[in-house]
Formats: sequence, structure tokens, C-alpha cells
Amino acid sequence: MSYQPFTEQTVVEHVRQLGYLQDGIAECEEIGDGNLNLVFRIRQGEQRLIVKQALPYAKVVGESWPLTLERAWIEQLALREFANVAPRFVPDVLGSDRTLAYTILEDLSDYEIVRTGYLKGESYPELARHVGEFLGETLFATSDYAAGPIAKKRIERDYYNPELCDITEKLIFTDPFKDAESNNIEAALREDVERLWQDQALKVEVTKLKVGFVTKHEALLHGDLHTGSIFATQQETKIIDPEFAFYGPFGFDLGQIIAHLTLSTFYDPFKRFERFTDVLTVWETFEKTFRANFERAVEPFNTDGFVDELLRTIFSDTIGYAGCELIRRAVGLAGVADLETLPEATRLERKRDALALGTALIKERHSVESIDDLVTLLSGVRV
Amino acid sequence: MSYQPFTEQTVVEHVRQLGYLQDGIAECEEIGDGNLNLVFRIRQGEQRLIVKQALPYAKVVGESWPLTLERAWIEQLALREFANVAPRFVPDVLGSDRTLAYTILEDLSDYEIVRTGYLKGESYPELARHVGEFLGETLFATSDYAAGPIAKKRIERDYYNPELCDITEKLIFTDPFKDAESNNIEAALREDVERLWQDQALKVEVTKLKVGFVTKHEALLHGDLHTGSIFATQQETKIIDPEFAFYGPFGFDLGQIIAHLTLSTFYDPFKRFERFTDVLTVWETFEKTFRANFERAVEPFNTDGFVDELLRTIFSDTIGYAGCELIRRAVGLAGVADLETLPEATRLERKRDALALGTALIKERHSVESIDDLVTLLSGVRV
Repeated sequence: MSYQPFTEQTVVEHVRQLGYLQDGIAECEEIGDGNLNLVFRIRQGEQRLIVKQALPYAKVVGESWPLTLERAWIEQLALREFANVAPRFVPDVLGSDRTLAYTILEDLSDYEIVRTGYLKGESYPELARHVGEFLGETLFATSDYAAGPIAKKRIERDYYNPELCDITEKLIFTDPFKDAESNNIEAALREDVERLWQDQALKVEVTKLKVGFVTKHEALLHGDLHTGSIFATQQETKIIDPEFAFYGPFGFDLGQIIAHLTLSTFYDPFKRFERFTDVLTVWETFEKTFRANFERAVEPFNTDGFVDELLRTIFSDTIGYAGCELIRRAVGLAGVADLETLPEATRLERKRDALALGTALIKERHSVESIDDLVTLLSGVRV
Repeated sequence: MSYQPFTEQTVVEHVRQLGYLQDGIAECEEIGDGNLNLVFRIRQGEQRLIVKQALPYAKVVGESWPLTLERAWIEQLALREFANVAPRFVPDVLGSDRTLAYTILEDLSDYEIVRTGYLKGESYPELARHVGEFLGETLFATSDYAAGPIAKKRIERDYYNPELCDITEKLIFTDPFKDAESNNIEAALREDVERLWQDQALKVEVTKLKVGFVTKHEALLHGDLHTGSIFATQQETKIIDPEFAFYGPFGFDLGQIIAHLTLSTFYDPFKRFERFTDVLTVWETFEKTFRANFERAVEPFNTDGFVDELLRTIFSDTIGYAGCELIRRAVGLAGVADLETLPEATRLERKRDALALGTALIKERHSVESIDDLVTLLSGVRV
């Protein structure tokens, strides 16, 4: 069967043929935003399914460009890989088809997208611990340290994801630092952004972080781990949508989530203590989990003292990538509701904060000594 | 046709069928050492060919283990890739077959293997400049900086070479630093080597260099660039045998060739000035070629000042990998004639020098400021 997008009718027929539904009526609703994927919620009695199907193009702010369907295959591969070591933190994958570019997933209707919850003033008390644990498990398990280089290279080969990586590479590391068409710069912010573009030392550091992104094949990353890629309840956390998954630097996912926890405080300053405590908890839980796993690292990576040096590098990378993400969300193509829904004066102030804080994180990443120092730096921004 | 090793008869028949030979008598001689590959030299009138065929096992010091035939495919792919930008420095590839695991190559009978020439007291006045240029061209051309990350990822995917990389990873970075069966330690050297094994700081640094080898996918490397992998005449230089080719750190090939130029002075101290000048020339030519190519680096890698920082990292990696290679050749599985053919007392002294110098290079690689300082360090060893 060749690829074609499902309709609410054809998807029900298809999953019925696969045995997921009985004869008789099934409810089906397309609930995606239609920019990249179709998302169908199907219900029949107790049975509840999600079918997520990739579209052969991406739409962002009115623009549309072709985008490989292979990302659906990579996404389900990554979910299965993560489930090997952290099944609690990803949705169950019930089925997938490479040609039709769909994945059948556990329905998480009882959960809420974390960014949406945050905008409503919600808190997720287990979130930070869960994300830290997820990263400590999956980043270790897919690295050379767990499996040894031969096994790792075999896994790694499945995660070549050039088109999706290219989006990240352009939108995070390149376009925000020059006068690119893709940028979305508010007129009142133009002067601040132009100052950024003249900061040669900053641009060299961003280039080094981009080089890390494209050359350091350390572990299987989610690749897009912001608060919109996490479903949560008060007790549970599910990481979704790893279509940007690839082998990259340990610090990238960590940096992204820390940046988005920070951005959420720009929207809701009353949550500063809670969210910065979450930043601390994400890192500390990651580090603890990663160190515990490292007890069974293969030689010679189990050399005494090596893991300490490794964690120092992961930490400075994390800070640098968090900085890039803050800047990108203030000036780049993909804005976030945390900033965009603020009233104008506040919004401009917060975007300036994002630029200043992002710059500081990138430039000072090697001299931040501890997670406490990082939290001090993050929370030092006036609000 | 399924794989089987050629004989002197069947290989002539095979290449005749492919149209490389006329009817009538052709001379054929197997000239390989039989450890990893069969190498047939075929002559008929003006026609001269080499057919190199991989054997499905490796033999080293009496041991034999299975080894993927895929390495023949990777070798010819790499030779063709190198020929795109540095055709003068590799043999012409006339044909290849993935199943039969052979490559048909230009015959280089007028050339000599550099290590063999060095042992006879030969000099190759163009060698260092050619090797520097070869590395400056090929390392740049296969990097993210030349092709952009999408094109680079597509090339990179062909060079997954886990089995061959595993040999390097074990024999260079792991086994020499512990009491491994594969080591070949002279009894009189045992005490020195045991001191090395107790040097925890050294072992952490070697582990970091191994991590670079397995995670930094910077450029297509030759992967085994010692003086036995280079054919030369007084005027010409040909890099051969890239069956260990893979995407790795820029500094690895550079470090290997510098280590082997240094080892050649351990055999023949009268050539010290010449060979250390060669070390200088290899680096300086590499840097000059790489910088010139970098003028056309894709953005944002063309950011002012970035290439200087990159070259600093390449330089310290180079020094570290040279150090690992020196240690490995003194205590590991694969000895080199430069050391092994020396009379016992001298040999032990030189091996101790290799251990001391290797250790210094690894530990001090970040504080060596320039190629002149490196040459001073290399030549500081008493002889």
C-alpha cells in the first residue's frame, strides 16, 4: 500500500482490519493541529487509541515545505528504545507502519500537555524528578558507556535524521544570530537583536555548540524536549513526539527542558521558586541516575574519575544549549505561548531578559560550577 | 556469485572477463602478507593491475579471528572519496565488488612503503608536505564545514565500520593500559608498564581520548595512517589501505602519522632533524590547507574566529592521539619494525622513551602552545 493521509473514516477501517477494534461503531476525531501530523483519537467501548500519522510537509506560520515521512518511523523507534529502560515515561507503542508513516499509541487523554497546564497555573510535582530519571536512564542506555561501541554503533545507525536535524540546526544555532528571513523579531526588539548579531564572541561560542550538536554522537536524544512534548498528571509523566530523535550531545535535551522551565517563569513569576526548584531537581535526578547507571559502564569508561569529568562536560553543554534555546524562542521562527501571550510591555521585557540570560549562559557555561550556581544565574533576572 | 578467495589462476580469469586483460598469457603473483588480505599483482604487456581481496579473518601473531568482508567495500569507498579532492595522493580505483570483497587498483610497484624505505635509510623529501595536504583536503571536504550537515550525514552513513573501529579502540585505547592478553610486553619492560597502569590521571585522559574517537564524528578518517600505509617515491606519495576508514576526530590521523615519524627516529637517530622537520611540515601544511579551504566553509562555521578555536582543539587532539599511538606500539599487540629490529638494550631504552613521551603528550596536550613546542617536546627525548 502506498502512502496516503488517513481520514476519520479510513483510519477506523484500517485499525479495525488490524484487529484493534470490534465490528460496530467506533468514535474517531482528528485532534492534531495539522501542521506536521494528523492525530486521530479513536474510541470504542473500553478501547481507546491514538493514531498519529506524519504528513509529507510541514506548515509553520503560513509557510509550507516538504518534510520526510521517515520521521514517523524514527519517532516510534525512539519510543520503543526509550521504553526498554524507562517504560513508565513514554506512551505504549501498539503498532507502526513505515510506508503509511503512522504509529498507534496509548491514548493519554487523562494527561495534559505541560505547557498548557502551566499557562493555566497548574503544577506537576513529580515532573522534574521523572524527566531527570528519564534522561538519566535513556541517555546512559544508548551511549557507548552502556552498550559498548559496537552495539551502540548498530543502534545509532537507525537514527540518521538529517532533515529534522537540519531544522534544529538552522532555527536554533544559525538563523537567530543573523538577519534571517525565518526570524520573527518584534520591531521594538530590533535594536537589542542587532546588538546580539554584533557580539562576535557570542557567535563563536554558539558555533562551537552547533559543532557539538552535529558531531558529538553521544546518546540517543529526544531532540525537542520542551514543555509541549511532555504530557503529565499530578502523578505521572509521559514524554511524547520524539520525531527529532538523533544521536547527539548529552546536554542538548537537558538544556532544552531547563530553558523551557525558565521560560515558564517569564509567564508566571509567582511560580519562580517552584520552577527553579524543578530545574535543580531535573539536573540532580539526572546526575544521580546517570551516576548509578555508570556503576556498570563498560571498560575503560569505568576508569575512576572519568565520570566526574564527563558530567562536568555534560553540565557546561547543558547550560550552553539552554542559552541557545532561550535566545531562539525570543527571536526565532517558533515562538512560545509563555512569551507570546504576555501583554506587550511585559513581553518585550521578558524577551530582552531571554536574550541577556541566553547570552550569559552561553558565554559563562564553563565557569558555572554547580547546579546551585546555575539556578542563581537563572533566577537573577529581574521580573 | 558468492564470496570465495581468489587464486593466482582464478583472479586472472576474473579480471580478463571484466575486460582488463587481453587473451593470452598474463603474469600473476600473490604479494600480500596473507594476514588480512590477498594482494595479486597482474601484468600483461603494458597493463599492470593490483587486485586486493579481503580474507574473512585476520591473523596477527599466530591468532586468527573472523573479520567482516565489508571492510573491502569501505576501503574502496574511502579511496574514491579521497580521490574527489586529493586524487594525486591515492591510487586509482579501477573496479570493486562488494560480494567478492575485492578492489582493482593501480599498480604502485615503482613506489616503496615508507616504513620499509626508512629502515633502509631512505628519505622522502615531499612526503610530509603531501601528507599534510592530503589531510587538509580530505578532512575538510568530508566535514560539516564543507558540505553542510545534511550532505555530510549522507556520506557519513556509508562509513559505519564497527568491527574495524573495535580493533583500534581495544588495541590503542584499552588493552595497553591494563594487563590484557593481547599485549606484547617484554619481561624487562614489565615494571615500567605496571607503573603506567597505576597512573590514574593518565588513564582518565586516555579514556577521554577514546571517547573522542567513538563519539566525535568530525570527518572521514583513514583510520590507520602509519608509515606502512603510505607508498612513496622521491616525488610522489600515495596513501593506501583505508580499511579502517570511519567518521572520527580530525586529530586522529594527524596524531598517528606524527607518532610514526617520531618512532622512525627511534630506529635511526641520524634522521632526527629530518623527521622532526617533517612533523612540523605535516602540521603546517595541514593547517595552511585546512585554513585555505575554510574560506569556503558554510555558515555559521565561517564565523570570524571559529576556525582558530577549532584548530586549537584539533591540535590538542592530535598530540593526545600521537601519545596513545607511541604507548601502544611499545607494549601492545602490533609492534613496529622501527622498535622491534633494534638490538635489545637500545630497544628497551627506546620503548621506555615511547612510554614516557606518550604519557607526556597525553597529559600535556592542552598546554602545548604551538607546533614548534610540540617538536621541542618530541625531540627532547635522549637518544
